[in-house]
Amino acid sequence: LRLSGDETGGGIGSISAPQASLAKPFLAALAGERQKTPPIWLMRQAGRYLPEYRELRTRAPKFLDFCYTPALAVEATLQPIRRFGFDAAILFSDILVIPDALGQAVSFESGDGPRLDPIGDAEGLAKLRHEPNWERLAPVFETLDRVKADLPKEMALIGFCGAPWTVASYMIAGRGTPDQAPARLFAYRHPDVFARLIDRLVDASAEYLRRQFAAGADATQIFDSWAGVLPPAEFERWCVRPIKAIAAKVRAETPHARMIAFPRGAGAQLAKFAGLAGIDAIGLDTATDPRAAVAALPERVTLQGNLDPLALVAGGRRLDEEVERIMSGFQGRPHIFNLGHGVVPETPVDHVERLVARVRGQRST
Amino acid sequence: LRLSGDETGGGIGSISAPQASLAKPFLAALAGERQKTPPIWLMRQAGRYLPEYRELRTRAPKFLDFCYTPALAVEATLQPIRRFGFDAAILFSDILVIPDALGQAVSFESGDGPRLDPIGDAEGLAKLRHEPNWERLAPVFETLDRVKADLPKEMALIGFCGAPWTVASYMIAGRGTPDQAPARLFAYRHPDVFARLIDRLVDASAEYLRRQFAAGADATQIFDSWAGVLPPAEFERWCVRPIKAIAAKVRAETPHARMIAFPRGAGAQLAKFAGLAGIDAIGLDTATDPRAAVAALPERVTLQGNLDPLALVAGGRRLDEEVERIMSGFQGRPHIFNLGHGVVPETPVDHVERLVARVRGQRST
Repeated sequence: LRLSGDETGGGIGSISAPQASLAKPFLAALAGERQKTPPIWLMRQAGRYLPEYRELRTRAPKFLDFCYTPALAVEATLQPIRRFGFDAAILFSDILVIPDALGQAVSFESGDGPRLDPIGDAEGLAKLRHEPNWERLAPVFETLDRVKADLPKEMALIGFCGAPWTVASYMIAGRGTPDQAPARLFAYRHPDVFARLIDRLVDASAEYLRRQFAAGADATQIFDSWAGVLPPAEFERWCVRPIKAIAAKVRAETPHARMIAFPRGAGAQLAKFAGLAGIDAIGLDTATDPRAAVAALPERVTLQGNLDPLALVAGGRRLDEEVERIMSGFQGRPHIFNLGHGVVPETPVDHVERLVARVRGQRST
Repeated sequence: LRLSGDETGGGIGSISAPQASLAKPFLAALAGERQKTPPIWLMRQAGRYLPEYRELRTRAPKFLDFCYTPALAVEATLQPIRRFGFDAAILFSDILVIPDALGQAVSFESGDGPRLDPIGDAEGLAKLRHEPNWERLAPVFETLDRVKADLPKEMALIGFCGAPWTVASYMIAGRGTPDQAPARLFAYRHPDVFARLIDRLVDASAEYLRRQFAAGADATQIFDSWAGVLPPAEFERWCVRPIKAIAAKVRAETPHARMIAFPRGAGAQLAKFAGLAGIDAIGLDTATDPRAAVAALPERVTLQGNLDPLALVAGGRRLDEEVERIMSGFQGRPHIFNLGHGVVPETPVDHVERLVARVRGQRST
């Protein structure tokens, strides 16, 4: 859940993209350019596996306070860049800042995930603000602005939000569950109330991303971590359509916005993202076969992923083999190297170094 | 995990199947016969949503003792048959009886899932028996024998086991986890030890199913509940190959054995089960689009599934619509109606009645 953009240009297709953004390999990949060495960043590249992060984290006991303190969030965002020289930095924040800014109480029990005051019915929804408290989110935009100023020019800055379905599933359940059953059941029982919640999240998320672009994000990623638990009709209604709506709204105000969707667990339903205007890249989870993704998604879509985070924990020859398999699986397509899910806390730092070296072709490491 | 077979004939294809088994609509569907009204049974059709089960369950404090007491297991198996007249009864037992019979300590904390003494390394594996303690499993076979005697002749009896990957993932972690990460990591770090564990489970499971057929099972289902968390190469090695090996071993000794594989979460990798000799049907999970499964799997494979268990909890018009969608999604193919996952404890009994009536075309209910 904890995850770590600069609208400097880039239209649809690489031709209309200004040179400034193409100097960043990450943005060139998003613009559809196939590169010999794919740009690389990792979901949760900032976080507990880094000793310097664990030290920094002690400076604010509450996790949301940490996210809302630009000095700390900027530092957390930049730590993995300094260590590994990734091609992109991702804003250090959390997808649940949106419910927080809508007035729902959010807290993080240490090691136990988020806790929210669950929305049980239409009345619970009515208690939420119609628009996020942008004042509350001002530190996020300040963080982006400050990271941007510090970031080497060849590196991109990624902003993000949670997808409406995933965020709503936490808002309904009040926590993470094995399969987000409470929200699925709520959506069956009260489809109209649930649709209103999703609509509110579409509006809030689109405006949130638009403001992230204005603050310096080069690209944004929409995390739909719980896309995989829905039957096909619900997947279409609660995952695909809201992401499409967000992309359209963002593009309407920020025509050159670069966007990535990460519908984790989409499996055989991946092709439903094939035609989404405004989505430049699809993030692929660990279970997705790169060749299946290549077949399911049109050539203009950049593919991002999808090393198993546990292969990164294992390291050694197994890691090398997996890197090789992924590099060759995406052969011929614009590709951004990433994990299929976030870096886990047990990841040895030297395995990440080895990964970056392998992807960049330093095979002797 | 708690889930509730009779080799009376049935060859490959419906022509060679003796009439005796085709009198059972469930077996006719497994033999590839498309029926106007699909046969129906539900995963976890026996269990906590039934008041008579909750009463029965109090008679043995430990869950495995309950499973190993034929009088109780027979009654639990038959309860949903009496109430709903499903087309098949499924043995009341648990996939973890195999680790138990291999000498690994298994217990069930109430409401908290299974606990096993985790296998940490090659030494832990060496402590297990090479072959299950069949004495320990004798009550399972007695249960099948007794259920068979009580079951109306038009109803089939299903036996089952867990797939090696899923069972191994509990044996390594000692419990269920959100993504069975401990076993995935173990398999990366110690592929040879893990392969030996999988091989042992293949042998034990094949012999276990063979004995279930001998005891009266008409068909068996192999539950791979955790198939969805593996990358493609691991999916092939730890899910597809072991299930294929079990099916081949069972078929070698019981040529007319009918078998169903349920690779939950297989998503876009479903097609890898297309060519498995010995697997007559594939169970589909909730997230699978029936039309995608129809396209991915050859016509000779019977499709089983895949109503969302939460639509069954919701009931009413939403349930009716989902039933309609699934019935029409499998149009033209041999189909066994089921859920995409097990019945949950919150399921109202009258929703199950409504479901059975709808599937059987009593639209006025």
